[in-house]
Amino acid sequence: MKLYTYFRSSAAYRVRIALNLKGLDYEAVPVHLLRDGGQQLGADYLAVNPSGLVPALQDDGLVLSQSMAILEYLDEVYPVAPLLPKDALGRARVRELAQIVACDIHPINNLRVLRYLVKQLGQPDEVKTDWYRHWVIEGLRSLEAHLARNPGTGAFCHGDTPTMADCFLVPQVFNAKRFDIDVEAYPTIARIDALCADLPAFKAAHPSLQPDAE
Amino acid sequence: MKLYTYFRSSAAYRVRIALNLKGLDYEAVPVHLLRDGGQQLGADYLAVNPSGLVPALQDDGLVLSQSMAILEYLDEVYPVAPLLPKDALGRARVRELAQIVACDIHPINNLRVLRYLVKQLGQPDEVKTDWYRHWVIEGLRSLEAHLARNPGTGAFCHGDTPTMADCFLVPQVFNAKRFDIDVEAYPTIARIDALCADLPAFKAAHPSLQPDAE
Repeated sequence: MKLYTYFRSSAAYRVRIALNLKGLDYEAVPVHLLRDGGQQLGADYLAVNPSGLVPALQDDGLVLSQSMAILEYLDEVYPVAPLLPKDALGRARVRELAQIVACDIHPINNLRVLRYLVKQLGQPDEVKTDWYRHWVIEGLRSLEAHLARNPGTGAFCHGDTPTMADCFLVPQVFNAKRFDIDVEAYPTIARIDALCADLPAFKAAHPSLQPDAE
Repeated sequence: MKLYTYFRSSAAYRVRIALNLKGLDYEAVPVHLLRDGGQQLGADYLAVNPSGLVPALQDDGLVLSQSMAILEYLDEVYPVAPLLPKDALGRARVRELAQIVACDIHPINNLRVLRYLVKQLGQPDEVKTDWYRHWVIEGLRSLEAHLARNPGTGAFCHGDTPTMADCFLVPQVFNAKRFDIDVEAYPTIARIDALCADLPAFKAAHPSLQPDAE
């Protein structure tokens, strides 16, 4: 199995956690998002994923992009250490929590969007930073509200074992901290993130421990 | 079943298509995104969905937000007219296609993001329009490339019956046309969209036919 990855990509980080939770070996193929005008936009990588975005997973002839589709695939084909609970309501809730990160926070703060703000719109760095912080703060507020009000929240986002939702939460918290957001203002999120930080699967997926880390 | 919806919301439109494909009756509860400073941000609606975004589905005690989580839930609990194929590779591909829309296009062009550009950043309307068109064009290019290169593409995005991917494609094309984007430049997308437009489930979900349409 090959994972096209970039150490600091939030979406790749999610997939690394899931692969580690399931104990699946993979070859990391680094795609440097800043080098060579963005290696994700080069012909070699576009042949893998025409979207020009990381991550992409290659497994047994299949090439798959989109982190959530990858996690669902891994969970169907490698069911050990399931990323989704067994009951339909629990599964729905875990997907909802993951998608709050995947749809409401991360896409608005992706590298290409921040670049558009600076290059096409000529916005200064502090406007870019405010933009980033605005959407993360709004998203963490929303995620915290969903977690805090639901009795399904356990030691982790849902119950007492890690799920897909935790694979999405941890990289988003990592990004929030990079932009000096006070994560302690979201006590449930901070508590779950701290618990995950101690687990080997999450530790080994951390950006600073990747072969392409700088 | 109750669907909190807004006639022009792309994410609500996806859920309406899925409910119609499965022949599920529902009560539409309109949430006006522009009236009263945005009804989605009022206390009544935040009690339903603390994210302050439509859609939300209420079914038998469950309240669920996030359109893709809703579609996955509907498919698990009401398996008639399945939105996902049976094989793991096909399921992965359908989710990937849906997520290209759900993660790479739509969030960047959501109402609240366009508002931030105009209100917080003081950008003129034409910059907002360019922004919108830029991300739709980039997203449709990417979606077209994924569809065109894969033999799994049939009459619909995957095979010869509608799937979750078509539920996501059609509302995105509707939005693209509102912003005068030449969808014919993406022949596979245009072909699938035209086919869907003739089906009753897609027709009945169209924004112009909703009880809250203006």
